[in-house]
Amino acid sequence: MEKCRIVFSGSGGQGIITASIILAEAAVLHENMTAVQSQFYGPEARGGATRSDVIISYTQINYPKVIQPNVLVCLTQQAYNKFYPIIRPGGLLITDSRFVEIEKKVDAQHKELPMYRTVMDKIGKPIVFNICMLGAIIVLADLVKPASIMKVLETRIPSNFLEINSSALDLGIKLAEEYKS
Amino acid sequence: MEKCRIVFSGSGGQGIITASIILAEAAVLHENMTAVQSQFYGPEARGGATRSDVIISYTQINYPKVIQPNVLVCLTQQAYNKFYPIIRPGGLLITDSRFVEIEKKVDAQHKELPMYRTVMDKIGKPIVFNICMLGAIIVLADLVKPASIMKVLETRIPSNFLEINSSALDLGIKLAEEYKS
Repeated sequence: MEKCRIVFSGSGGQGIITASIILAEAAVLHENMTAVQSQFYGPEARGGATRSDVIISYTQINYPKVIQPNVLVCLTQQAYNKFYPIIRPGGLLITDSRFVEIEKKVDAQHKELPMYRTVMDKIGKPIVFNICMLGAIIVLADLVKPASIMKVLETRIPSNFLEINSSALDLGIKLAEEYKS
Repeated sequence: MEKCRIVFSGSGGQGIITASIILAEAAVLHENMTAVQSQFYGPEARGGATRSDVIISYTQINYPKVIQPNVLVCLTQQAYNKFYPIIRPGGLLITDSRFVEIEKKVDAQHKELPMYRTVMDKIGKPIVFNICMLGAIIVLADLVKPASIMKVLETRIPSNFLEINSSALDLGIKLAEEYKS
């Protein structure tokens, strides 16, 4: 895809902003793309719904806010309820099966993945939930190579935490492959 | 100030994005403001110059990119060389005396602070340089209260690191008060 507009949404502690920045850096530093990442904090931020916008592109990016995302990730019910109407028709909606119950049909492909449950079953640490989610979306939406994400993680994460991050990324990739068809 | 546009610039490992997010969250969660934080990663990101834009405002924010910052922070020579021309006339330029040598006069108030040296002398850990910088700019530019920054730090930082972050914030505040006049 020439340009992909992604909105990550969920709650404060889920590591959504970190995942966004890792994705943007992977695209720019290791895939020769341009990227922008932004957060708008309005009054709703005080209510706990976090949203982070990322655009990655092979061409110049002028406007950083995503109006209609090609890819919308919702990791809480509150985020889903608030953001599902903005998805671009024909886009890709990704939700976590533990946290989100779908209420309305959207004009988009919908993948409901047990990301949180898989991380808790296989690794047992919720802190890498965001990295598992990142592994899933880079495959489902064909964004960047897993190796590019790993290169960014290697510069950001202390070496003793790198292994569980790498495992979480792999779990997400496997989930995506399983749910892709 | 009704609305303040801030550009933080420096190199990748200096914690500029983290400092930006902490400032934005402090303004939104604890000072009843609206904020937006964004990073544009163009080809120059591959050369090592990082830039992070923050707007904090008592009114709605429409466009998230900062064209002419009221406050420009430069923590490397490369960042200074690249960004000093964008400062808003009459704005505030803050540089670190260890890393930046001023080459041109700008139409702005200029504060050259020994932030890095002070952090290394008093705390000895470069990792909190960004928090010292944040302490300095919230005072010099009158952005948010130190207590609001501390409240955000308390939710983000493991308790055993809170003390050095709090000390770094205080060092920045004291430096700013010393250099304010």
